[in-house]
Amino acid sequence: MSKIKNIIWPQIILFGDSITQVSFQPNGWGSEMANKVVRKCDVVNRGLSGYNSRWAKVVLPRLISKESASSNHIAAVTVFFGANDCALEDKNPQQHIPLQEYSENLKDIVKHLGSVGVSADKVIFITPPPLHEPAWEKECVLKGSALNRLNSVAGQYAQACVQAAGQCGADVLDLWTLMQKDGQDFTGYLSDGLHLSEKGNQFVAQHLWRLLESRVEQLPFILPYWGDVDPKQPESSLLCD
Amino acid sequence: MSKIKNIIWPQIILFGDSITQVSFQPNGWGSEMANKVVRKCDVVNRGLSGYNSRWAKVVLPRLISKESASSNHIAAVTVFFGANDCALEDKNPQQHIPLQEYSENLKDIVKHLGSVGVSADKVIFITPPPLHEPAWEKECVLKGSALNRLNSVAGQYAQACVQAAGQCGADVLDLWTLMQKDGQDFTGYLSDGLHLSEKGNQFVAQHLWRLLESRVEQLPFILPYWGDVDPKQPESSLLCD
Repeated sequence: MSKIKNIIWPQIILFGDSITQVSFQPNGWGSEMANKVVRKCDVVNRGLSGYNSRWAKVVLPRLISKESASSNHIAAVTVFFGANDCALEDKNPQQHIPLQEYSENLKDIVKHLGSVGVSADKVIFITPPPLHEPAWEKECVLKGSALNRLNSVAGQYAQACVQAAGQCGADVLDLWTLMQKDGQDFTGYLSDGLHLSEKGNQFVAQHLWRLLESRVEQLPFILPYWGDVDPKQPESSLLCD
Repeated sequence: MSKIKNIIWPQIILFGDSITQVSFQPNGWGSEMANKVVRKCDVVNRGLSGYNSRWAKVVLPRLISKESASSNHIAAVTVFFGANDCALEDKNPQQHIPLQEYSENLKDIVKHLGSVGVSADKVIFITPPPLHEPAWEKECVLKGSALNRLNSVAGQYAQACVQAAGQCGADVLDLWTLMQKDGQDFTGYLSDGLHLSEKGNQFVAQHLWRLLESRVEQLPFILPYWGDVDPKQPESSLLCD
């Protein structure tokens, strides 16, 4: 019998803030990606609620290092920050990141990924979604603060994200623009004015899949289809590539 | 600054047949586990549709080896086979596994896991769910075969699974018994007589969580809560354990 070879299960890494952290909620966009790539790829949740791109850039080397990237095959990385970066400086100085720095941080993230072998064509930026101010204001008031984000400012960060993607050769899913396209009512995509509703999760899943599909379609189906396993000699089908 | 330390994200590995492979479908039990353990643990899908315990035992060393187990911290492994093993020998000889061998295969799986450092107290067996014969017969007929499984036979495999768990010190979730407890109508837990409906997914999630919770509650929340990050010196919070 040939030597038993470990199977490397490729990974799609979802790197982002709370919108990523909760992406495995019922009907979440993360689970839907995992469901679509089953037997081809793992979907790994590296969502960090509340984090901005500055903190993301600091922790990324602890999450994806040369060592970890070389032992796993990384098929794609989504980079989904901005919803906290765009918090207003005077209302939320802890999370706010200046626009220019946000853009540099995104590019630095791609640079780090490149340095550990994950090329820019595997990276998909996702812009913050639009913000529904009246709903988010209610959340802010409940926590004792004033409205701390504006949709127009989120739009500036989304635009910076699209530009940064172009500059470093990454793909981008511009949620802010897509969700407001043709003057549609985007509020149904959100649960609290900032995070995604079920409809918003489906929207992200649908659009992200268009970008992810090409990155996983060439990956093999891992281990044989059960009907192809020889029941008399299962080892011959199951232990060889 | 102290040397940057890689973060090891512990894993819960879901090892099983199609009922595991599709566990990230909308409202699936796999996604619900992933959602519950976010920032503590990854949930890794190693569901192999159509596979029985004989094939599972053959491929397991390719999926969890000493090498992979030592570089990841494995918090728990679910072992969920039997729904194919219990197929009737005369109707479905390709998938059928004799009852005694099924039991031995489960114990061999625990033995392999032990040999790579995953002790039996981290293993949770899951028995096959009950089978709704009229619904499954329709599926069989659509594929040109006769009814190829019986609920009473699935029950024998479930019982063997419970016994094997006891013998090797693993925990067990006895779906076959729980779903029929107190004469309740179990058919709503199934989508096609064999696989889980949305209600069945919720049932599995609820009962499995009771067993998994104790295995993950001691795991730390990975990386600081955002409100605890010092915005003036984020590195001090984010780069140290």
